[in-house]
Amino acid sequence: MPGDRLITLLTDFGLQDNYVGVMKGVIARINPDLNIIDITHDIPPQNLDAANFCLMTAYPYFPSGTIHVAVVDPGVGTQRKAVAIELLTGFLVGPDNGIFTGVLDHEKITMAVELTNPEYWLKPESSATFHGRDIFAPVGARLAAGTPLLKLGMEIDPVTLTRLDLPACTRSDDVITGYIQYIDRFGTLVTNITGTSVKDLQWSVTTGGQIIPGCKTYGNTRPGGLLALEGGHGFIEIAVNGGSANSLLEIGYRSPVHLVIKQKI
Amino acid sequence: MPGDRLITLLTDFGLQDNYVGVMKGVIARINPDLNIIDITHDIPPQNLDAANFCLMTAYPYFPSGTIHVAVVDPGVGTQRKAVAIELLTGFLVGPDNGIFTGVLDHEKITMAVELTNPEYWLKPESSATFHGRDIFAPVGARLAAGTPLLKLGMEIDPVTLTRLDLPACTRSDDVITGYIQYIDRFGTLVTNITGTSVKDLQWSVTTGGQIIPGCKTYGNTRPGGLLALEGGHGFIEIAVNGGSANSLLEIGYRSPVHLVIKQKI
Amino acid sequence: MPGDRLITLLTDFGLQDNYVGVMKGVIARINPDLNIIDITHDIPPQNLDAANFCLMTAYPYFPSGTIHVAVVDPGVGTQRKAVAIELLTGFLVGPDNGIFTGVLDHEKITMAVELTNPEYWLKPESSATFHGRDIFAPVGARLAAGTPLLKLGMEIDPVTLTRLDLPACTRSDDVITGYIQYIDRFGTLVTNITGTSVKDLQWSVTTGGQIIPGCKTYGNTRPGGLLALEGGHGFIEIAVNGGSANSLLEIGYRSPVHLVIKQKI
Repeated sequence: MPGDRLITLLTDFGLQDNYVGVMKGVIARINPDLNIIDITHDIPPQNLDAANFCLMTAYPYFPSGTIHVAVVDPGVGTQRKAVAIELLTGFLVGPDNGIFTGVLDHEKITMAVELTNPEYWLKPESSATFHGRDIFAPVGARLAAGTPLLKLGMEIDPVTLTRLDLPACTRSDDVITGYIQYIDRFGTLVTNITGTSVKDLQWSVTTGGQIIPGCKTYGNTRPGGLLALEGGHGFIEIAVNGGSANSLLEIGYRSPVHLVIKQKI
Repeated sequence: MPGDRLITLLTDFGLQDNYVGVMKGVIARINPDLNIIDITHDIPPQNLDAANFCLMTAYPYFPSGTIHVAVVDPGVGTQRKAVAIELLTGFLVGPDNGIFTGVLDHEKITMAVELTNPEYWLKPESSATFHGRDIFAPVGARLAAGTPLLKLGMEIDPVTLTRLDLPACTRSDDVITGYIQYIDRFGTLVTNITGTSVKDLQWSVTTGGQIIPGCKTYGNTRPGGLLALEGGHGFIEIAVNGGSANSLLEIGYRSPVHLVIKQKI
Repeated sequence: MPGDRLITLLTDFGLQDNYVGVMKGVIARINPDLNIIDITHDIPPQNLDAANFCLMTAYPYFPSGTIHVAVVDPGVGTQRKAVAIELLTGFLVGPDNGIFTGVLDHEKITMAVELTNPEYWLKPESSATFHGRDIFAPVGARLAAGTPLLKLGMEIDPVTLTRLDLPACTRSDDVITGYIQYIDRFGTLVTNITGTSVKDLQWSVTTGGQIIPGCKTYGNTRPGGLLALEGGHGFIEIAVNGGSANSLLEIGYRSPVHLVIKQKI
């Protein structure tokens, strides 16, 4: 039943203020049987790379038909569009600023609309600074209640949706060049190189002036030692056993990473 | 149906310990179909001004009949009363220490009771330090299940309910004097002056020895610059574009703010 | 109805990344009417003492039949077992590393299985680093949906379940020797000595070179002063009125504490 659709929330609002609670109140007024899962509200402020990564890697684990409301919105109050996107397996609601890049790269888009119909907003005249509460939460709740996408606004061509301008990824014979796409709270540096690239191979990673051995598990290295391994997201990660790779290496989002394949095991 | 009423929680317990989870367990034992929304659990410890603001500004966004359980309770274990309050549009449960000041100023009170009936508590003899678990969570769950207010304790006169002793707010011809009523996690200083006071006017704000220009959006100022604007809560806020106004200005809760109206645009 | 069973989550994953959201997505795909309560996700990384304490003290407050999924897992990817345990009053799912010590000490065990049947996992070949998502969340969701324990794996003898090697607790005539079993986010040091041990007695606590007076409430001591009192968990706690005992005393988890009974009041 459409009314039972799950809503997820992903923001950079943090949990200290009442912003997230208020968004849920707005949703509860439209759908009293709310079914909301927080993906995270601690995206580093205005960091679209981190938001894009967290949504892209969470998306496949949710039920079909889930509505994902994502609000990291440096351009709120400017001319950036507000959009809702219907995919074969779910819905996306948020600003059109690249936050959906990774999901759009992996999923089939059925339809996209610009949110131009204020009838489905909290207030006819929304605030300049809190579209999460005034536009995105009520629109997400309406979708969960079965409102068709086309009622929410004007259809737009999906190819016009904004994508993040992420670095290219290249492969020569034995070197894969990627980049840091996410830094987690343990200071683990998550690259965009998939673990399947190095399955059954011996390999190492070069970044920030360090050569880091490729391992199977944390147990393979001494405490305090740098290692690279396939993480839970399916990507090669750079970590420190019991410490923070981010503190040890002076690199950041989008820094280049070279993975060197040595030989078959 | 009474059993479907939503419960919100607002505390200064943080999410690191199990206090909030335990309160939800207590509620779930009474109402298995729990429907709980966290407003926030990161109120600065014992800061009643912040708790009052977060509840007052969240309250209007929740469905009618919602039960708001708020526990910031510096006086736990002393003689302060525990209360439940029925409003025209919802319920409040918590200590009688001023935490409900803002909501009570805006909403019509139907009835107030002191929570004197231990039959509705977790244990007949409640702990000296954790009334959130032992009194407020079970009482909130009982209200959500439809228990009438008068069963929970002794009716009291609503005028006797404790209010915070907040600064007065004054207006002369072209100067509105208010105060800082909340500091959010981005370091934004939220005044108690409403945005409607300056609609279609040119204005600036003076506080902490600085004159701060009134703006429409963050886009109107350079990165790092101080600005004042109407925030999502509907109040004039003092912010830094990409930074923290709280770190820049040495002022705090209840500090005075002067808003000077220059002319009509 | 089995499908209505509540699931709790306790991890050291934090809320900054999407790990917890992803676990909930996995549960929602199996049980769309999810009913999940977070006990906490901010256990200090890999701190099994803290995880054990938070689960042990939360467990009694949840409804009978609740499934508790706990994932603090320093040994993930090594040979430690993954287990599910049926108690008279609930279920435990997680790594067999001592995290359930306190609950097992207080509750009657009905049956324990090692999670050896990949049919109930997210993927036949689980990741080396994220068993929370790949094994424990789906197994928890299956138990909530009524799957019998024995389908999930091989029965094991409950006496073989790993327990934490916690210090012994002794009592001579007028001295009880215990230890610090938890440090909360306010820096309160929670001992393992129960408040009932000192009911109606005069007493003090010696630890870290300090003699700390036993009190009834925070109101009994000056701001900034050390005091010992029975906390909400039912244990004697060492606190500072308006400050952090953990910052003041240089002691940590498992540090010894001597409680000296002076006389009857």
